[in-house]
Amino acid sequence: MHLMILGAGGMIGRKLTQRLLAEPGVLPGEGKLLSLVDVFAPEIPATTGLKIASEAADLSVPGTAERLIARRPDTIFHLAAIVSGEAEANFEKGYAVNLDGTRALFEAIRLEGKKQPYRPRVVFASSIAVFGEPFPAAIGDEFLTAPLTSYGTQKAICELLLSDYSRRGFLEGIGIRLPTVCIRPGKPNQAASGFFSNILREPLVGQEAVLPVAVDVRHWFASPRSAVGFLIGAATLDLRRLGARRNLAMPGLSATVGEEIEALRAVAGDAAVRLIRHEPNPTIIRMVGGWARNIEAKRAIELGFRADASFTDIVRAHIDDELGGSIGGRSI
Amino acid sequence: MHLMILGAGGMIGRKLTQRLLAEPGVLPGEGKLLSLVDVFAPEIPATTGLKIASEAADLSVPGTAERLIARRPDTIFHLAAIVSGEAEANFEKGYAVNLDGTRALFEAIRLEGKKQPYRPRVVFASSIAVFGEPFPAAIGDEFLTAPLTSYGTQKAICELLLSDYSRRGFLEGIGIRLPTVCIRPGKPNQAASGFFSNILREPLVGQEAVLPVAVDVRHWFASPRSAVGFLIGAATLDLRRLGARRNLAMPGLSATVGEEIEALRAVAGDAAVRLIRHEPNPTIIRMVGGWARNIEAKRAIELGFRADASFTDIVRAHIDDELGGSIGGRSI
Repeated sequence: MHLMILGAGGMIGRKLTQRLLAEPGVLPGEGKLLSLVDVFAPEIPATTGLKIASEAADLSVPGTAERLIARRPDTIFHLAAIVSGEAEANFEKGYAVNLDGTRALFEAIRLEGKKQPYRPRVVFASSIAVFGEPFPAAIGDEFLTAPLTSYGTQKAICELLLSDYSRRGFLEGIGIRLPTVCIRPGKPNQAASGFFSNILREPLVGQEAVLPVAVDVRHWFASPRSAVGFLIGAATLDLRRLGARRNLAMPGLSATVGEEIEALRAVAGDAAVRLIRHEPNPTIIRMVGGWARNIEAKRAIELGFRADASFTDIVRAHIDDELGGSIGGRSI
Repeated sequence: MHLMILGAGGMIGRKLTQRLLAEPGVLPGEGKLLSLVDVFAPEIPATTGLKIASEAADLSVPGTAERLIARRPDTIFHLAAIVSGEAEANFEKGYAVNLDGTRALFEAIRLEGKKQPYRPRVVFASSIAVFGEPFPAAIGDEFLTAPLTSYGTQKAICELLLSDYSRRGFLEGIGIRLPTVCIRPGKPNQAASGFFSNILREPLVGQEAVLPVAVDVRHWFASPRSAVGFLIGAATLDLRRLGARRNLAMPGLSATVGEEIEALRAVAGDAAVRLIRHEPNPTIIRMVGGWARNIEAKRAIELGFRADASFTDIVRAHIDDELGGSIGGRSI
């Protein structure tokens, strides 16, 4: 059983790797090989169980997808992407990586299958950025994809390709529309949604954070733990249950920035909340205004996908997973 | 005012050309030049008014789009495509023409605009093939695009590109999802939907036609006249009224094959109906089963687009436009 993670060096890729190493049995199959791929060769974690390989590869460079697919991985987690802010700032790079890179991957799989039958499971990390306002009170499974960013457009296009390549029998695709992952560990990246995490993560370690939008802004969230759970679920789902519609909005938690802040207060107190500095940013306000606020992920829930129950849970999970279970010397 | 029709040699392209020549004032602008482009140089009709140029060009050949766009047409009707049956039979050709050709066009426009400001109106002929079952009783303007053919996938992807390129200010795009055009004049093509026309067109001139599906099959139709009206409407619409959602389902007529046949009977009598031979074709039955049957084209109707009132009107329009107003020596 050969598992390949494209974008393994990113936050979700690292979290998925950790989970697969901690619980090698979470995916079926014997004698697992785990290939970690990213534009910079991902660090190989210390491990006892799985065989691990690491490799630098850029799907948007011609020939790269063919080289990777020649190894015929059984399951491919395709998480590699330029994030929303960068795809908006750099039109050509966004299309080259997010669209052409993904299409090169699917084409490499199709052409490999012409040499000798091959139909891998492809778990594609899509995004709620495929949706754009105006929205109903909750976005249903049959709501149109009308993205308002180039990133969302690229994800929506790849979803369509994934469905068509699956329908034609070239691969076994499933696309999962991840909510905004919060709390993102580590440093801020260029994702325009980064502040949703920053305003919790930084105060939890005594650092200031900037809030660029109003506290009544509502958005759709999942913890890193839940996001990894979604990927595992997608890799193991009986795809006959999906039918032709291969792209699923994942369940999540609909919450306002104010509710995030109250969860921070409940867990870490007023002192932490005081570290959030409100500094309105018109560009981010405009982008966020077009984003999904609430999704009725009925199909995904029926298929067994599960989200976080509350923002307090999300904050506590972050403290457990990233801060060794305590903040400021206090255990939670 | 430079108008360019890509796919001018196809049925809709020829009908649009005829309309623009018959009514040069239907589109605003003085000193009109009409460029007709197709993979084979379209025939230049005899004309009194407009300047016309004809050219053979294949958008899927590198450099072609740049060459065409260097002439900076003000309005581009993009009708060029491989039809549904061929795109399903030839996966690579369908993607090369319908997706890569369209993207090359949009990219050529973007890059031309970098040299000197340029933002043409692009009217993109999309299709109800962007939809796939299961359907509600009538498909609304916010229904998802989940195509069940490669053709529909390619159209849905181009719609997304059109919206993003419009949002970024590279072009003034509008995509219109054409119903199945019926009655198609001329010879059958590779469109899997061709029989909807064949069973009317052929009997009207005393020829047999094959019906490959059951008479209770319901589908969504517009006459060639209406389709041309939609293109003209899209070329003249104030696009500020569209907002970010640049792709519109066009109004049409929801009718069963049985209703088509009754319209034929009403206009041409039982003898014509007896020329239809029922010969079930499992492949076509399966494809048609996934197609849209009824669409609530609310936005388009609010914006002024108008469809045919009845199938009898559609049959009569065909007799007027294609058969000189009479059938079998009888004037209708």
